[in-house]
Amino acid sequence: MDCGVLFSGGKDSTLAALVLEDFYDVTLVTAGFGVTDDWEHARAAADDLGFAFERVVLDESVAADAVETMVDDGFPRNGIQAVHEHALEVVAERKYDAVADGTRRDDRVPTVSRASAQSLEDRHGVDYLSPLTGFGRGAIDDLVEQELVVESGPSEEVPKGDYETELRALIEDREEGSVAEVFPAHEQTRVTGRR
Amino acid sequence: MDCGVLFSGGKDSTLAALVLEDFYDVTLVTAGFGVTDDWEHARAAADDLGFAFERVVLDESVAADAVETMVDDGFPRNGIQAVHEHALEVVAERKYDAVADGTRRDDRVPTVSRASAQSLEDRHGVDYLSPLTGFGRGAIDDLVEQELVVESGPSEEVPKGDYETELRALIEDREEGSVAEVFPAHEQTRVTGRR
Repeated sequence: MDCGVLFSGGKDSTLAALVLEDFYDVTLVTAGFGVTDDWEHARAAADDLGFAFERVVLDESVAADAVETMVDDGFPRNGIQAVHEHALEVVAERKYDAVADGTRRDDRVPTVSRASAQSLEDRHGVDYLSPLTGFGRGAIDDLVEQELVVESGPSEEVPKGDYETELRALIEDREEGSVAEVFPAHEQTRVTGRR
Repeated sequence: MDCGVLFSGGKDSTLAALVLEDFYDVTLVTAGFGVTDDWEHARAAADDLGFAFERVVLDESVAADAVETMVDDGFPRNGIQAVHEHALEVVAERKYDAVADGTRRDDRVPTVSRASAQSLEDRHGVDYLSPLTGFGRGAIDDLVEQELVVESGPSEEVPKGDYETELRALIEDREEGSVAEVFPAHEQTRVTGRR
């Protein structure tokens, strides 16, 4: 069975792929709007990890709406959620038997409810898998430490490979300095290989 | 890291163990009240699967309360939930770094809420893992088909190795024929090996 795992280049989506690789032929799928070249970081990470890689391009109007929402809200949560849902729809349209993401039990965003999961499955004839929803933060930190080599730093210096970095760029394009108002500074991780 | 996986001998708890075995030293842990010898089915399945096995004995008063609840309710759900929660507490007291179960995304019972999971983790200093909560029914059926050899049949003929069979026996002891009123007839599975 084939599984496309939504992949940012960070530790959560990588760990999700590691959980699935014994059971599925995993392809890491990075979704973006074609705004920056940061998806190349994700491709490099996929190569280092030994996984097949695919890039999918999302609908620009979804980015525009998400940016509008995030700037209005003053926080990124609802915009990120909308883009994540769109990305799952796009990957579910592709050839995979299953589509997966790195959503964790203790995440506030993105989240995929059981009803949304079943709707995605029914409409696209795929399975939706979120292998990390059964793991808490402590377990995930231990597993990352055990399995992966990561570099971490502030999100400006360690960009994610997926749409999040592009959304930040689009917000900054509207008004210089505005990204810091919407996205709180946080530590980002980038995976550079397996232990 | 050591992980004790609550194990009934059925397909869900087995699949949970398979998901975890790349990351943890897994022991299959069967919990019961010492009422019947059905735990020996679970031990035999653990041997066939190549996992370490441990049997833990639960508090009899929890069985008595659960039976009372199930008979009063006329359905098993709340009683099963109470016993499952107790079993997790007992396993969390043991030597494992993590305690896991075969709870699935689409299960109605038992369920472990995020708050209960965090409470269990905080009180016992363990991680709680439910690796199948990220998988829907369709994906689990496919994975069982791909990974496991199972026999299935009515629950009277294919007894589970854990507390459920004992709860059925305790209800039947109170009044002959009463178990059919509380437990709806359903198909049970027993794992006999890996593919």
